[in-house]
Amino acid sequence: MKIEIAGLDFEKGDGLIPVVVQEARTLEVLTLAYTNRAALVLTQSTGYAHYYRRSKGRVMKKGVTSGNVQKIVSILTDCDNDALVFLVDQMGPACHLNERTCFHKTVQ
Amino acid sequence: MKIEIAGLDFEKGDGLIPVVVQEARTLEVLTLAYTNRAALVLTQSTGYAHYYRRSKGRVMKKGVTSGNVQKIVSILTDCDNDALVFLVDQMGPACHLNERTCFHKTVQ
Repeated sequence: MKIEIAGLDFEKGDGLIPVVVQEARTLEVLTLAYTNRAALVLTQSTGYAHYYRRSKGRVMKKGVTSGNVQKIVSILTDCDNDALVFLVDQMGPACHLNERTCFHKTVQ
Repeated sequence: MKIEIAGLDFEKGDGLIPVVVQEARTLEVLTLAYTNRAALVLTQSTGYAHYYRRSKGRVMKKGVTSGNVQKIVSILTDCDNDALVFLVDQMGPACHLNERTCFHKTVQ
């Protein structure tokens, strides 16, 4: 089944939708990010992941300074249309701490 | 590296932390859910995923009515301690629509 951006529920999260970012080849979860309508349109039109960075209050292309960009392989949404998965081809490490994934710590 | 529940950042999300739920064997992303401190303590102490269900306003064990429970394999957190991954052994379908995963639609 396919859905368009207009069918997504941006209202529940005050304009933002959480995005699970997953490496398409290994299926490793790289990071959890947020998108808004503008960032998602840019992601689709350019083929590279853009996010709404809550700490900066604006839309940014992932890896714009580091070069660690994410090429989009596919975008999925869930039954409620209020969460996304980006399957990506990750260039370099995803994490700003130079780790391959942001999820590199165990909760005990 | 290991971290305890006390080290997680529940404040950023007004008491809630988003949880990426991933099938431990296939690494398929099953759903995006939310936890609070109480749900996470229950998850750790019982070994089965509990979530804070925003639509119900309370903590519930996943699969308590359907039987489609999630046995915890491991719990990861990210660099900011404000998002989690639950790697789980999923019994039955994860989605209430009887799909294997909630992420069964493509955004075009």
